[in-house]
Amino acid sequence: MKVSLLDDLRRQNPIVFNISNFVTVQDVANGINAIGASPIMSEEVDEADEMVQMSQAVCLNLGAFTTPQVHQIKVTGQLANQYHKPLVVDPVAVGAVKYRAQVAAELFQAFQPDVLRGNAGEIAALAGINWQAKGIDAGEGAADLVTIAETCAKKQKCTVILSGPTDVITDGTRTVQVINGTTLFQTHVGSGDMLSSIVAAFCAIEDDYFEAAQTACLVFAAIGQRVAQADPQMGAGTFIIKLMDALQQTTVAQIEAVAAYE
Amino acid sequence: MKVSLLDDLRRQNPIVFNISNFVTVQDVANGINAIGASPIMSEEVDEADEMVQMSQAVCLNLGAFTTPQVHQIKVTGQLANQYHKPLVVDPVAVGAVKYRAQVAAELFQAFQPDVLRGNAGEIAALAGINWQAKGIDAGEGAADLVTIAETCAKKQKCTVILSGPTDVITDGTRTVQVINGTTLFQTHVGSGDMLSSIVAAFCAIEDDYFEAAQTACLVFAAIGQRVAQADPQMGAGTFIIKLMDALQQTTVAQIEAVAAYE
Amino acid sequence: MKVSLLDDLRRQNPIVFNISNFVTVQDVANGINAIGASPIMSEEVDEADEMVQMSQAVCLNLGAFTTPQVHQIKVTGQLANQYHKPLVVDPVAVGAVKYRAQVAAELFQAFQPDVLRGNAGEIAALAGINWQAKGIDAGEGAADLVTIAETCAKKQKCTVILSGPTDVITDGTRTVQVINGTTLFQTHVGSGDMLSSIVAAFCAIEDDYFEAAQTACLVFAAIGQRVAQADPQMGAGTFIIKLMDALQQTTVAQIEAVAAYE
Repeated sequence: MKVSLLDDLRRQNPIVFNISNFVTVQDVANGINAIGASPIMSEEVDEADEMVQMSQAVCLNLGAFTTPQVHQIKVTGQLANQYHKPLVVDPVAVGAVKYRAQVAAELFQAFQPDVLRGNAGEIAALAGINWQAKGIDAGEGAADLVTIAETCAKKQKCTVILSGPTDVITDGTRTVQVINGTTLFQTHVGSGDMLSSIVAAFCAIEDDYFEAAQTACLVFAAIGQRVAQADPQMGAGTFIIKLMDALQQTTVAQIEAVAAYE
Repeated sequence: MKVSLLDDLRRQNPIVFNISNFVTVQDVANGINAIGASPIMSEEVDEADEMVQMSQAVCLNLGAFTTPQVHQIKVTGQLANQYHKPLVVDPVAVGAVKYRAQVAAELFQAFQPDVLRGNAGEIAALAGINWQAKGIDAGEGAADLVTIAETCAKKQKCTVILSGPTDVITDGTRTVQVINGTTLFQTHVGSGDMLSSIVAAFCAIEDDYFEAAQTACLVFAAIGQRVAQADPQMGAGTFIIKLMDALQQTTVAQIEAVAAYE
Repeated sequence: MKVSLLDDLRRQNPIVFNISNFVTVQDVANGINAIGASPIMSEEVDEADEMVQMSQAVCLNLGAFTTPQVHQIKVTGQLANQYHKPLVVDPVAVGAVKYRAQVAAELFQAFQPDVLRGNAGEIAALAGINWQAKGIDAGEGAADLVTIAETCAKKQKCTVILSGPTDVITDGTRTVQVINGTTLFQTHVGSGDMLSSIVAAFCAIEDDYFEAAQTACLVFAAIGQRVAQADPQMGAGTFIIKLMDALQQTTVAQIEAVAAYE
């Protein structure tokens, strides 16, 4: 676990190109900016080639799922593969909505993600494991979370992040669980989308995407935990504001002091 | 007035499907989440059937008014009627923009709202009463607000919420006025959109939509009033953050202690 | 420099019609509202004529750059010229993305902006001066910022605002530099978009657009500076919330007390 990657990220200020969930796009842009990368967003396929070329990483959020956006996502994913830019995909609600699961399956025929980041319901769906997802929430099921994540990683041939109270990060061979976190992440709708784009920012500066993914998860979870612990009465509104502050200001040493993973 | 519905809502955590105003979508999603329901948003008509089926209520915001979105709104409204899901409609700016008034009239031929939520200018337009609306703001006119709301309810055959410093809620027979509130609601662009979706969340757990609507209005107005009274110098930015906190944390007893309606 | 225009703006509460960057639209709407104008947003070309007619100023943000939106931007810009409504254009990323530079050039054949507001990379591109832009960020180059702004104003035949640590405002003849500000503006993605729409709000109440533009820049920069100076440890999240509060609450006298320009 190389928490010092955070300093590299802040020094290099990589450009992260996002096709973003329209619900959370502003929070995601600000989160990328706060941690020290440079966000760029677009909804127009005609500028996808230029956007991918000028970026150091690409994050595709499947919450943006109109027909023109699915086309833009497909083209952009192929360009990321072609230009060898790290490609993070957030498969929003593929566990709950059959339409999304079908389209996602078609997309994954067209391009190869380097990292998938989702909740238990989403990762289980992509692993082909039975799970009861609930809308955009994780839902519940009997399978072991580590098994789900590792099965998904092997099936999809990439690093997988299964986010939740404990994050499971695996490339199918190496597996780590990040224990840090706070329940306040679940009270804010954009937390998962923001993490996906921050993972992309770490992949922009570290070629071992498993290493980048586990570090991004630890950094994000530890920063959130520090914010929440500063005030046990904190509500969902205040949390996101303080999280933005902390993404910008928390040091590597402060994260290492609370880091908990196995 | 059954304020205890708030506890039912938090216990049941209903899924509310929103076709949302692109201006305020993130605030609305977070507001639904904060009060204890589960938001899901989509802009793609091909997943409308699944989204409506998995939801316990539907909220259509006419601030999302491109031609593809109008089509999606029409289909989704029809599906909500067909699957007997409570349907809340927020007719943004129909009082100020003739184009929107025309399209709204066509939409109301295609489906039947259960609750309409708007400001005086919007509700007057749907009641066929003369009123000078101003952009997205309420504007001004001579007619009595209760008369406007009741006329609209009878004409549109549904529960109507006319929001403002005092909220008027009526199904054409029963009428209540919620006195609680704060002028800070007007300083934040998303307040009305958020209320509409919170009304839908209450309709998801209470079959009497007039009861659900009046309770939602009281809960929202009383929580806002408590937030504003805590700091008389509070500005528009701080208000929305504290409102999110309070949507999550305010108890039934705290609301009952300040409840003012007639 | 007529800081008292801020009181006029708050008294007149002009409607500002925005075709807005989807990334920052909510912040922009709230910023317009907080300073005392009335925002209206739309993505539908069929209501553009009514929207322009009911507005006192128009702001076109080229961050909204899908093919249908480019069409809507073109029509709306022409309507603003036709109805003699002040027209502010924010040329997001035209310095970094060739596709955007080409489309912007075509748009400026179709209509004439009254004010252009961008960072050094964007204004240099529209001036035809060589500059190394970086994504949505300003980038760097050798040319003098005043020269870039004045060249752009003469070439584009309008008032130009080159935003940055120091803002340069010029109509090609008159030039002023606003020294106020804070680096926290750069940590929040929506700052520039918000300034562009606030410039439009000032143009709605002052026919000399150079005067309106310089005053808007001074008001915005001075308010931001006052917010930042209140807490040297302030982070990016807290800043935007306090900025919203201060846009609403700061007085003309408070701004005049810190105003710094030459």
